[in-house]
Amino acid sequence: MNHSIIRYIVGLTLILEGALMVPSCVVAVIYGETALYALAGSALFSVAAGFVLRGKKPKDTVFFAREGFAAVALCWFAISVVGAMPFVLSGAIPDPIYALFESVSGFTTTGASILKSVEELPRSILFWRSFTHWIGGMGVLVFLLTLLPMSGGFHMSLMKAESPGPSVSRLVPKVQTTAKILYLIYVGLTLFEVLLLLVGRMPLFDALTLSFGTAGTGGFGIRNDSIAGYSVYHQVVITIFMILFGINFNAYFFILLKKIGAALHMEEVRAYLGIILAAVLLITANIFHIYGNAVTAFQQAAFQVSSIITTTGFSTVDFDRWPEVSRTILVILMFIGACSGSTGGGIKVSRILLYIKSIGKEMETYLHPGVVRKVKMDGKSVEEDVLQSTNVFLSVYLIIFTFSVLMLAIDNLDLISNFTAVAATLNNIGPGLSLVGPSANFAMYSHRSLLVLIFDMLAGRLELFPLMVLFSGKTWKKF
Amino acid sequence: MNHSIIRYIVGLTLILEGALMVPSCVVAVIYGETALYALAGSALFSVAAGFVLRGKKPKDTVFFAREGFAAVALCWFAISVVGAMPFVLSGAIPDPIYALFESVSGFTTTGASILKSVEELPRSILFWRSFTHWIGGMGVLVFLLTLLPMSGGFHMSLMKAESPGPSVSRLVPKVQTTAKILYLIYVGLTLFEVLLLLVGRMPLFDALTLSFGTAGTGGFGIRNDSIAGYSVYHQVVITIFMILFGINFNAYFFILLKKIGAALHMEEVRAYLGIILAAVLLITANIFHIYGNAVTAFQQAAFQVSSIITTTGFSTVDFDRWPEVSRTILVILMFIGACSGSTGGGIKVSRILLYIKSIGKEMETYLHPGVVRKVKMDGKSVEEDVLQSTNVFLSVYLIIFTFSVLMLAIDNLDLISNFTAVAATLNNIGPGLSLVGPSANFAMYSHRSLLVLIFDMLAGRLELFPLMVLFSGKTWKKF
Repeated sequence: MNHSIIRYIVGLTLILEGALMVPSCVVAVIYGETALYALAGSALFSVAAGFVLRGKKPKDTVFFAREGFAAVALCWFAISVVGAMPFVLSGAIPDPIYALFESVSGFTTTGASILKSVEELPRSILFWRSFTHWIGGMGVLVFLLTLLPMSGGFHMSLMKAESPGPSVSRLVPKVQTTAKILYLIYVGLTLFEVLLLLVGRMPLFDALTLSFGTAGTGGFGIRNDSIAGYSVYHQVVITIFMILFGINFNAYFFILLKKIGAALHMEEVRAYLGIILAAVLLITANIFHIYGNAVTAFQQAAFQVSSIITTTGFSTVDFDRWPEVSRTILVILMFIGACSGSTGGGIKVSRILLYIKSIGKEMETYLHPGVVRKVKMDGKSVEEDVLQSTNVFLSVYLIIFTFSVLMLAIDNLDLISNFTAVAATLNNIGPGLSLVGPSANFAMYSHRSLLVLIFDMLAGRLELFPLMVLFSGKTWKKF
Repeated sequence: MNHSIIRYIVGLTLILEGALMVPSCVVAVIYGETALYALAGSALFSVAAGFVLRGKKPKDTVFFAREGFAAVALCWFAISVVGAMPFVLSGAIPDPIYALFESVSGFTTTGASILKSVEELPRSILFWRSFTHWIGGMGVLVFLLTLLPMSGGFHMSLMKAESPGPSVSRLVPKVQTTAKILYLIYVGLTLFEVLLLLVGRMPLFDALTLSFGTAGTGGFGIRNDSIAGYSVYHQVVITIFMILFGINFNAYFFILLKKIGAALHMEEVRAYLGIILAAVLLITANIFHIYGNAVTAFQQAAFQVSSIITTTGFSTVDFDRWPEVSRTILVILMFIGACSGSTGGGIKVSRILLYIKSIGKEMETYLHPGVVRKVKMDGKSVEEDVLQSTNVFLSVYLIIFTFSVLMLAIDNLDLISNFTAVAATLNNIGPGLSLVGPSANFAMYSHRSLLVLIFDMLAGRLELFPLMVLFSGKTWKKF
């Protein structure tokens, strides 16, 4: 393990985080808030700590997958801790574990909160809180890649470790260019959403923060009732952009290249949109009697389905009071998640497709032994090692899930709260059902349970393996 | 697909079922119950229908895995329907869907019941109800194999399709001899339990029916309070035998051959006993305050843990009132299940071991790319296709689980009841939590939901694939 290069990367990441705190400082100046000192102090600390850690550029630039995993896990841990500082220093969230939970929830784009009320927080702190979603959505290391000229293996290993989904496809031969294109699409879509919200006469501050929350599929709101208080126009705009940010970004790349056909033929995107449509129609039928008219029922169903499947977690109604069929569908969507290569969480539609295709292959093998068949995706054969990783992902996922629910049980709250709290954090959604439902928060859990959920949020965002590698003793052996 | 051989096997199975109803008829004669007519009538019908279906022995004896799966699925469907007849005809359970649920629950050794009270049922009907557990435990087709001299491919395909676990090992080269040895061990252990229960002055009727329920890891009791009313000695005997019937029967075969070392070194058996020990100790500590003394707490914990992990489902206390940690542990055990090659259900300890070992292998691959490693079990490499089947099993399991919970949600009962009802039936346990907890029953579900749960019980007992193959359109195409 090349320790010096990992230290170097963590240092650079912290310098970058300090710089990313500047917009929040500007907001503090505009609104004349004393939180400016907390934000500016944290930013200076972050930059200073970053420079100390970075030191000189290491001579040994050996960088493999294990270095990639370890670096990504450590960077995310570091930005979460530093990202919690403004909350503690400004007095907004004095308890350090609560602040860390909020910070991890932000960067991992989970959107789960321990705050009972957000409206009395300083605007600059709310801005930082929402901005963490935007930073975490596309990935802070992918951002670093766009700035950093280094060798290819280095870029690829970092990109693989931080990007969601079973496999990373380079859009163009150079990884750094891929990262730049991704961020370009990301910034473009975010600005477009801000614009559309402003057109509907939403204040600029709200438009920015909510767009950050949508773009990162995070879900932190700036009002206590999340999105319920905004106009139907704003809710519809947010619904559409949640769906858009849950799409595999490769589709947008194809569209940029004017290969619309290729974008429309991506199996994952089609399945993702199909699942959304089916879920919205089923829930609309199921909740029709509550709203009394089809349009409202459809709009509410579309908002919640998009919010949950993309793992954003915004809410307009307390869906915990919907009938059991709707609630069950939403719980299922929690697990499915968005497309790989999007900012969304969950198991990812492409993995679900691979699981289903593997079943089909296995059945064929039983019915026609001797015929060798390959699992295909978008017309190409899927490599055996990708299938194997995808299967192992499911095992690790279930094991982490099970242990987390068991650890939460010690607080002696009800099973359904524990179950959906873990589902909501491991899938980076935010709200769950029952005690952690859309109109509640996570503050009733003990510090021990919150640490478990913090681990789950990080494991969910980094897709389990980086954290597993980090905690494996074998990683740190010298060889 | 060779239809005539499948028809032939279903016919033979029904003849056998008719014969297996005779002991219940004898019980009816002894107690002078009018249920005799229902039982004798069903037996005659079964034999007659069996002879009609069997017809002449087909000339075409082509028999592959797909025939094996289809035959097993159809046989189980047939014995379940005919097995429900005595319940309907005797008036014990007049509703045919309820009766089918009870019959499937019996044969699949689930032990879930729609009956509010069992004590007023005729003794002969109770005897039949418990005897279905014993028949289903080791498998009715494995029984048929012991009687039937046919070609080897035929035997192996049937055995593979009916036996639980990721792979069937032939104890001896001849499959028929393997089946005979398995039944010999099964009968021997059952008789030993009957004897020990009789020694504790349990009435013969109770000793027989409860031993059937233990041996098949079924869980139907003959009293409304399940096992709670029996002495501590009886509870301890049943605890021990539940554990014994959850062990991979290969271990007993090794013991018969005086290869005690080989039996003790089976990884699955060691893991199974280790999980039981850990769960019992954790729960004992967690419920100590309820019982006030360590011995009672330990004994109750041991009983419930053994009952749930072996998927028997007997109960001595209402564990739904235990603290959340204990309840969560029991829910986790519901999924783990017993050893493969035992009469127990669930995912099976050997599969869990394979999942964990695959994770280890994947981590190694990340940390040391280039080093090829194989997953090993009991010192031998596990074939890739077994690993692949094991992974596909998990996918199918989760998909059936998800759809079942969604279907049950239509009845608008609470999520935790639906979730554990599916867990309890798909894993062939019996009682769940909440509305379907140990002191409740499944009668509040609609007929539609009960049919879903019937499917789940069969899918769980036959390990998913036979039913999938049966319902696949491709199976019935002529080729």
